[in-house]
Amino acid sequence: MSVDQITLYTAKICPFAHRVELALEEAKAGYSRCEIDLANKPEWYAPQVNPASKVRQISFGGPQVPPEQPSPESTKIAESLILVEFVADLYPNSSILPKDPVQRAKARFFIDAVSTKFLPAYMAPSRAARHSSLFGMLSRKFRSFSPADKPYAIGDEYTAADIAITPSLRAWRFGEGKKAAEYFYSCDRFARLVKYYETIKGRESFKATFHPEVIKEKYNRPQAATVTAAA
Amino acid sequence: MSVDQITLYTAKICPFAHRVELALEEAKAGYSRCEIDLANKPEWYAPQVNPASKVRQISFGGPQVPPEQPSPESTKIAESLILVEFVADLYPNSSILPKDPVQRAKARFFIDAVSTKFLPAYMAPSRAARHSSLFGMLSRKFRSFSPADKPYAIGDEYTAADIAITPSLRAWRFGEGKKAAEYFYSCDRFARLVKYYETIKGRESFKATFHPEVIKEKYNRPQAATVTAAA
Repeated sequence: MSVDQITLYTAKICPFAHRVELALEEAKAGYSRCEIDLANKPEWYAPQVNPASKVRQISFGGPQVPPEQPSPESTKIAESLILVEFVADLYPNSSILPKDPVQRAKARFFIDAVSTKFLPAYMAPSRAARHSSLFGMLSRKFRSFSPADKPYAIGDEYTAADIAITPSLRAWRFGEGKKAAEYFYSCDRFARLVKYYETIKGRESFKATFHPEVIKEKYNRPQAATVTAAA
Repeated sequence: MSVDQITLYTAKICPFAHRVELALEEAKAGYSRCEIDLANKPEWYAPQVNPASKVRQISFGGPQVPPEQPSPESTKIAESLILVEFVADLYPNSSILPKDPVQRAKARFFIDAVSTKFLPAYMAPSRAARHSSLFGMLSRKFRSFSPADKPYAIGDEYTAADIAITPSLRAWRFGEGKKAAEYFYSCDRFARLVKYYETIKGRESFKATFHPEVIKEKYNRPQAATVTAAA
């Protein structure tokens, strides 16, 4: 277990930051959580934490300080998928990345498919119309990555592969996502994806990091206002 | 050390496959190398090795068979950067990925910058004109990632970060790359990058995987004919 301090700069509304929170919860890491208001970022944030002013940033090590007064002695690390791997490296006994090199490669291959194929289409402005074809693609990915009786993306464990896709499923509760989800629940070909969502919803890591009251407001807004930046 | 068989399907001309060869050489892995003629791929390749017909593919484990008769029992793994991590996982005592989680994150952050910023511009059709500004960007990356007295991208060791960028430097010997390199060698602001290239050229892994006679032919061809696919 790490003894260095971990501070996560995050935002409940950001799906990429959500990945990092899931990883920290899965690892049962001790960490300080600092919510950043994306619409009104504090002045100290860019100069002292992330020059690009992005959330999903960890400050690691250095002295114990309040998150609002980050120390120059701590290491600043950014990018959601790099941070998920970082947490896996800090906590090698978590199941975030399997010990078997072949399974690790499989997780990374699934993540690559999510990053290069699923998400760019999912985040496009016209995504409402494409919702079902996109999740159809995701269903096929699941079939090609693990046998039908397995609960998670690459097998029996909830890994970095699942962490990469989980935040895209939280939208099923709201707005256009809710309409799409109603269709998925009524349709046999999405049975596995629906079961997958139900399993993930039951995990402690999801319950601890999902903030429906905040996200509801975003997903009920007109589409043009949604966040479209890539991780 | 792994006892499972490793067969690499590769092509001397492919810069992405070159990364995987560098990783295997750095790890001192035992492996079979199977050269695939990109202009005339064998019929068995797509159905039995890689459905997308890409090289930079490893078959791992299963029975010892000739590369041209791959076994369905071996695991097939693709994508250059995933394969570099796979080799690092198989050989944790190699220096491909450092043991320190912070250094590992740094390597991955450098690779992310190479993949999302440097390479897409470098592979663009008009790259001749942009050569020096691109390598200027790379020089600045070096400065931000490691102190000036360090030989490699993130410090004292040749890691996955260096492996990701090495194949882009091999073009300095040929055609437009040679013209650019002459400029770099004459210009103080590229001094570190030039020293870096000289250091890499001296490594056994580079000497074992660099095939100037094959690459020369490619880089002396007109620009439109060069490979532009991303890894």
